[in-house]
Amino acid sequence: MNKLNELEALIRSEWKQALSQPRIANFVDTAAASDRRIIAIYLIQVYHYAFHTARNQALVGINLANTDTKYMQFCFEHALEETGHELMALHDLQTMGIRFKDRIAIPQALPATELLIAYLYYVASQGNPVQRLGYSYWSETSYSFIRAFMDMLMQSMKLEKSQMTFFYSHSHIDDKHAKDVAEIIVKVCKTDKDWEAVMRVAKTTLKLTNDMFHESFEEFLKLTRGEASAYAFINEQIIQSEGFEVAK
Amino acid sequence: MNKLNELEALIRSEWKQALSQPRIANFVDTAAASDRRIIAIYLIQVYHYAFHTARNQALVGINLANTDTKYMQFCFEHALEETGHELMALHDLQTMGIRFKDRIAIPQALPATELLIAYLYYVASQGNPVQRLGYSYWSETSYSFIRAFMDMLMQSMKLEKSQMTFFYSHSHIDDKHAKDVAEIIVKVCKTDKDWEAVMRVAKTTLKLTNDMFHESFEEFLKLTRGEASAYAFINEQIIQSEGFEVAK
Amino acid sequence: MNKLNELEALIRSEWKQALSQPRIANFVDTAAASDRRIIAIYLIQVYHYAFHTARNQALVGINLANTDTKYMQFCFEHALEETGHELMALHDLQTMGIRFKDRIAIPQALPATELLIAYLYYVASQGNPVQRLGYSYWSETSYSFIRAFMDMLMQSMKLEKSQMTFFYSHSHIDDKHAKDVAEIIVKVCKTDKDWEAVMRVAKTTLKLTNDMFHESFEEFLKLTRGEASAYAFINEQIIQSEGFEVAK
Amino acid sequence: MNKLNELEALIRSEWKQALSQPRIANFVDTAAASDRRIIAIYLIQVYHYAFHTARNQALVGINLANTDTKYMQFCFEHALEETGHELMALHDLQTMGIRFKDRIAIPQALPATELLIAYLYYVASQGNPVQRLGYSYWSETSYSFIRAFMDMLMQSMKLEKSQMTFFYSHSHIDDKHAKDVAEIIVKVCKTDKDWEAVMRVAKTTLKLTNDMFHESFEEFLKLTRGEASAYAFINEQIIQSEGFEVAK
Repeated sequence: MNKLNELEALIRSEWKQALSQPRIANFVDTAAASDRRIIAIYLIQVYHYAFHTARNQALVGINLANTDTKYMQFCFEHALEETGHELMALHDLQTMGIRFKDRIAIPQALPATELLIAYLYYVASQGNPVQRLGYSYWSETSYSFIRAFMDMLMQSMKLEKSQMTFFYSHSHIDDKHAKDVAEIIVKVCKTDKDWEAVMRVAKTTLKLTNDMFHESFEEFLKLTRGEASAYAFINEQIIQSEGFEVAK
Repeated sequence: MNKLNELEALIRSEWKQALSQPRIANFVDTAAASDRRIIAIYLIQVYHYAFHTARNQALVGINLANTDTKYMQFCFEHALEETGHELMALHDLQTMGIRFKDRIAIPQALPATELLIAYLYYVASQGNPVQRLGYSYWSETSYSFIRAFMDMLMQSMKLEKSQMTFFYSHSHIDDKHAKDVAEIIVKVCKTDKDWEAVMRVAKTTLKLTNDMFHESFEEFLKLTRGEASAYAFINEQIIQSEGFEVAK
Repeated sequence: MNKLNELEALIRSEWKQALSQPRIANFVDTAAASDRRIIAIYLIQVYHYAFHTARNQALVGINLANTDTKYMQFCFEHALEETGHELMALHDLQTMGIRFKDRIAIPQALPATELLIAYLYYVASQGNPVQRLGYSYWSETSYSFIRAFMDMLMQSMKLEKSQMTFFYSHSHIDDKHAKDVAEIIVKVCKTDKDWEAVMRVAKTTLKLTNDMFHESFEEFLKLTRGEASAYAFINEQIIQSEGFEVAK
Repeated sequence: MNKLNELEALIRSEWKQALSQPRIANFVDTAAASDRRIIAIYLIQVYHYAFHTARNQALVGINLANTDTKYMQFCFEHALEETGHELMALHDLQTMGIRFKDRIAIPQALPATELLIAYLYYVASQGNPVQRLGYSYWSETSYSFIRAFMDMLMQSMKLEKSQMTFFYSHSHIDDKHAKDVAEIIVKVCKTDKDWEAVMRVAKTTLKLTNDMFHESFEEFLKLTRGEASAYAFINEQIIQSEGFEVAK
């Protein structure tokens, strides 16, 4: 098995484990499945990390340890394409009734989201400059893993594709990007150390992304129990799909 | 006079002053005019600052004070296009006989070059995020000012265009870029403070670029006098145009 | 209850929860309690984060958003006192037989350790500059919470204080530092937002530190099962306390 | 001659050249000698660079290329001692009648000042981590060179020591620091490359500091000619020594 296949196998195995968690595996059968608050909380996390994605991607290009012209170009090109994608998350939130008067009004990211952002800056600026590709790779190739879950979620929440622009635009971009990432990984990973670094970052960031979903769900549970939360404003603003009653 | 015209007037006036300096105005009549060592020393400076240009350009896109999507995209797009241009300087040097076994073998930049590099990182990461556009603007629009000098220099040194790829590729790119920079400056400069910051950076970086030429010339004079210099290896390696004797 | 008391209550409650986890609460009754490999793996984590502690502490002083002279001085003074403390972890490892020929030979940090390091750089350089004090506060005031566990561990592993210099030197320093941190927190936290930021960082970093212990334990379990691990060399090198057999 | 003596000889020679410039050598005989506006403009430059001195000093300690515990401690200790010194410059300005309602009201630094700040961040974060010591060394050992000029200036401008706290407190600190810097330079400079880097930074920063004086003087000349200047407010606010008339 070559190294790229090993990376793919790792990602597949991590997704399999993540999707087998009862909360996700049984999601369709719970009341949460038709409560848009869970997706609203998650989209706020998306807003936060997407605000930083282009930045920490470009940071790898700036890193003085990176002197590979092709890899620098990859970094700047992908940063260019990711720029402003946090606005898609705001757009999607808006279609569900959630608006913010300015960026400062958006509630603070949950811990897993902050850790994902912090970690991507860290791996972009310190250590092996190839390592952030572990994140790029799974994020560009994971559409097949999450499609079934997303389709179910959209159906149960009665969401249109036009309300999920962040996910759907990325699923298209990903078809184009996945090949780019595979090519550049194979080009820049020259040693076992390089591949280990890529795999470590793939694993850690995939776990954090999964944590982000679980922390969003926990915050949602607080809302259902009427507990104090920086996200409580969602109770008032959210436009649920027709015929759905918000449990407060 | 609108602000963009003011910026252009400033740049024109700075170039006029720079080009009227006796060393430059009378260049064609001196022995230096046919001695390629001066251009070799200058191209080593170009190598150094060009190694950092894409990096400090992208840094403006990463700057958290920059939340303008269009401006971020401008930064990453231009970083992308500037990536690896230091290799053109190495190529041009090679056509004159100057080769380095690796990057570490390239002699340290002269002080003005280091200051230009340092200053561009500084203005990219601190202060008003629009200010680096002052550098972009003059560097993309100055071909008309230096063309006569460059043509004279190439003729007297018997250099082909294929030996001056850094300059000539940039002169073409610039036609395309100049309009982009003008557009983005007009878009992001909203206050007098913004324009002042842009003009200050334009003036300081143009001066440093001019200093870079003069320091290269001073280093060349050291070579002609046989003084100690980190650039002395050029004496041995340079392939002068036919019929030219290197004064050591 | 004033805000500092709230912070203390939060820390007490987090520790209570962490220490009530079965793996920790029942530690003394397990085979692990007398196996020094667990402490060796943990000390390698300590080495890694301690290498960065002074750096990310000083980074808060450099942060341009920090213009409070007293707080800047606090940052530089504490960075000064933390400098080189990673060497204590190496010393302690050495007393148990674990040596490295150079820094590069030390195995990569476990994920929770990397996340703690990454997060501290992030909170030091972005966002509210007071927030890293949440980490400082619990790390300087937690000796009372962990003393019983540490005493038990040292007894069961037959470790002398001279083999636990990292922990014991910090427990002394902490008596001096705790008052400093309390004073500076009260001085620089002026708004509810400031206190929230401090509490969020306290909670997240305390959780990561606890994760670091659990991931060290999981790595130890791999060693007991003979699984592949970057820490497997410990099996060979560790000097267990007299009469203890290493399970491989 | 050992390397430290070479460094001292370089500094002595640079100062000799700087002080022999007509503007400085003949300063006492000019109208400027009793016009406090020149010192006011210069103190505003001092404010600006001193705001960054502790920061870029600490940055060397944070630099991952710096793993020498003693040198890291030197960096943090000196950062600690330099913290807040920009406030001395504001105090001194205040004794001459110059006040600012907040930091933002202070006019922008002149170009040489910006270059000095930018360059110190650059040498602190990139390249050889020992190199900033070239700046530390001359700035801690130069009191003997500038004392005669400063004494003359204070007499002609009728300034008390209590109005020159920035200079006089540093002259005292320097006695203590000079030995520290010499010790650490000798400890960390192990190769010719190290010494070259230190000497290059010493020379460039000494030149920029001298440029800073000349640019302050040029700005002063603008005030005497009634030209537009961001420093024109000084004309109104300055309290000249008794019997002195401001030329506008």
